[in-house]
Amino acid sequence: MRQSQLFTKTLKKVPKDEVSKSAQLLLRAGFIDKLSAGVYTFLPLGLRVIEKIEKIIDEEMKSLGAQRILMPALVPKKNWETTGRWESFDALFKLKGKNKIEYALGATHEEVVVPLVRKHVSSWRDLPLAIFQIQDKFRDELRTKSGILRTREFLMKDLYSFHASQKDLDLFYEKVKKAYRRIFRKLKIDSKTYLTLASGGTFSKYSHEYQTVTPAGEDTIYICPKCRVAVNKELGSKNIKCWRCGRALSEGVKAIEIANIFKLKEKYTKAFDFRFTDKDGSRKLVMMGCYGIGLPRLMGAVVEIYHDDLGIIWPEPIAPFKFHLIQIGTNPQVQKEAEKVYKSLQKAGHEVIYDDRKNVGIGEKLMDCDLIGIPWRIIVSEKSLKKDAVEIKRRNRKKLSFVEIKKLNQYLDEVVG
Amino acid sequence: MRQSQLFTKTLKKVPKDEVSKSAQLLLRAGFIDKLSAGVYTFLPLGLRVIEKIEKIIDEEMKSLGAQRILMPALVPKKNWETTGRWESFDALFKLKGKNKIEYALGATHEEVVVPLVRKHVSSWRDLPLAIFQIQDKFRDELRTKSGILRTREFLMKDLYSFHASQKDLDLFYEKVKKAYRRIFRKLKIDSKTYLTLASGGTFSKYSHEYQTVTPAGEDTIYICPKCRVAVNKELGSKNIKCWRCGRALSEGVKAIEIANIFKLKEKYTKAFDFRFTDKDGSRKLVMMGCYGIGLPRLMGAVVEIYHDDLGIIWPEPIAPFKFHLIQIGTNPQVQKEAEKVYKSLQKAGHEVIYDDRKNVGIGEKLMDCDLIGIPWRIIVSEKSLKKDAVEIKRRNRKKLSFVEIKKLNQYLDEVVG
Repeated sequence: MRQSQLFTKTLKKVPKDEVSKSAQLLLRAGFIDKLSAGVYTFLPLGLRVIEKIEKIIDEEMKSLGAQRILMPALVPKKNWETTGRWESFDALFKLKGKNKIEYALGATHEEVVVPLVRKHVSSWRDLPLAIFQIQDKFRDELRTKSGILRTREFLMKDLYSFHASQKDLDLFYEKVKKAYRRIFRKLKIDSKTYLTLASGGTFSKYSHEYQTVTPAGEDTIYICPKCRVAVNKELGSKNIKCWRCGRALSEGVKAIEIANIFKLKEKYTKAFDFRFTDKDGSRKLVMMGCYGIGLPRLMGAVVEIYHDDLGIIWPEPIAPFKFHLIQIGTNPQVQKEAEKVYKSLQKAGHEVIYDDRKNVGIGEKLMDCDLIGIPWRIIVSEKSLKKDAVEIKRRNRKKLSFVEIKKLNQYLDEVVG
Repeated sequence: MRQSQLFTKTLKKVPKDEVSKSAQLLLRAGFIDKLSAGVYTFLPLGLRVIEKIEKIIDEEMKSLGAQRILMPALVPKKNWETTGRWESFDALFKLKGKNKIEYALGATHEEVVVPLVRKHVSSWRDLPLAIFQIQDKFRDELRTKSGILRTREFLMKDLYSFHASQKDLDLFYEKVKKAYRRIFRKLKIDSKTYLTLASGGTFSKYSHEYQTVTPAGEDTIYICPKCRVAVNKELGSKNIKCWRCGRALSEGVKAIEIANIFKLKEKYTKAFDFRFTDKDGSRKLVMMGCYGIGLPRLMGAVVEIYHDDLGIIWPEPIAPFKFHLIQIGTNPQVQKEAEKVYKSLQKAGHEVIYDDRKNVGIGEKLMDCDLIGIPWRIIVSEKSLKKDAVEIKRRNRKKLSFVEIKKLNQYLDEVVG
């Protein structure tokens, strides 16, 4: 797209109340806008990143055989009362309609998905079964100092699985772990992300969280020097050993919880008396697991890890565009050639944002480019045209390459990939 | 996908409290599930329809040059107070967080988009500008008797445009009308849909609605026999003439409001004092338009129009699948050939649902197929295999065709299209 058409502008000032580095950069670069504490709008560039994360997650969930649905946010009080969470889940936003019906906004969806699936499952033949959605969640968080790392409203992928036995739940749980690792690899945060034993909150006694190490993290974890696992400090810090190999753990390091998975077992199916008829004719409670990932939090975690003093450095799979084409100067020949390069890149199917702005100087264009953080920068200038070339640079490298315009598409295929 | 894997089953019973035909069919066929009055879940088949409608709308909005964003549902009280709608918009769901911040759930987003755009627009050079989102809306409706035609929570496309002059607003407004007509044509409801003069509600004095004629409609409109326009009964029913040609209008007919468009002009930009510097240096209020379409309502309107006694008859562009492949009987040869046809259809890139269920009889499979309403039915049975063929039938035709299996893909390319 043409940058002259993009309605957002980069901002010079860092908003005073934003202390998190990722929020500062995402606000300045025009990816998000803050409506109120813990409540953000995703602007065109930011929504493109969210859409790419969504696509990666959607594909991985479907590869597990999970079926996608869309549940509502208005969840009636009686559903929450059935599980006891109307009182015990303290982050619920509650409201009452004109007709006196009380609701809580969905902070998680066990209270909707269990009675839904119960309508369609009666026999062991109907199991196992996995269902997911990517949907807006609401949590009345007291602290909202971490930008999009902790918000009151956020897009979440929630997956729920239903099984005839603990063994089958255990098997599926391991498959989800592998799918999560594939997601983290695509987002380039896998090596900094640890499977962490933590409290289960209102869900269960313990849970597994995925914690990504970064100074911006709100949590503290102790890491095993050998296994890729950790323990959350909230479980107590004395004499902690690795729950996999028994070794002593590291000193505490800061980390962000980017996902969590729970073996809920019979906790919620019991509340709704959700049973199936097993092969032997007996009526048993369905076993259940749930698996969450917050999309904006993933986006924030990526920015916490991938940035420098100049701005964001997007990993290619979730960058809003792959190429940032910049036309420098007012020379009509430069403008003409830049337009040709833009059309040629689009024709070749590349995602490109083209800085065609007329009243913006070189310095500002280059600063905006570094701030926004597109992986590849391509400059058309008088200098480059003297070589019949464009100048190409990766966002995270210093090296400049001049590539002849007539060989550009070949270069992009062979070198950039 | 394999129907044996689809977690939803068709239902025999019509829910007692659902009087609308579209809701009855969508519930029975497993497209939606009712959580509470006016609050629905979209099941796998239903979400596929919504996703197709979303894609059609997204493409048409982008063809207008509109930029997609995603605004939050939690809108602070102060934004609503700025426009006076905290009190005057009676369908707002209001809630209060732990930190005493009051919100209303977004029923429409002028209160968010105007202050957002104000941050980025200062000069006539920044205009015109169009922004849209496809996002969950909340309205505390008193009546919710029409299934997904009128709900308390629904996915809505809302487009907002910003202009330096009334003339520019008028021009863009006409372009949106054309885009809306293209959307209705793709959904096959264009010929039954009338541009209708109506009250503007909390938005403006008058508005234009798009009303689709069907007995299930909650509104009554008077249609011009010549122009494709109408007048809503709510404006008063005496001596009404066509607002375009002056002719007398028809008797009242029932219709569903599926979309509406408003020239808001300065109403909301004035409330937020959103001004731009014009070419002559003067500071002027920005002119504004807004344009809404409810996605579930579109889906419901299509089903109201396209169904028969047996079930839904989806128009191809929004059908959850194009082909419904059915394997009939327990003959191993039939199963083997049906599997081969399924794989061949998938390989050719067709969207196909394959009824491979083992413990379901012929009658039930055919009834389910008619109820779900996929455009093309393909049967593999002992009878068809005697001719080395499959049996093909359109959902809305009686004629059966036998097509040789080895010529099937060619037939689908040439005849089905």
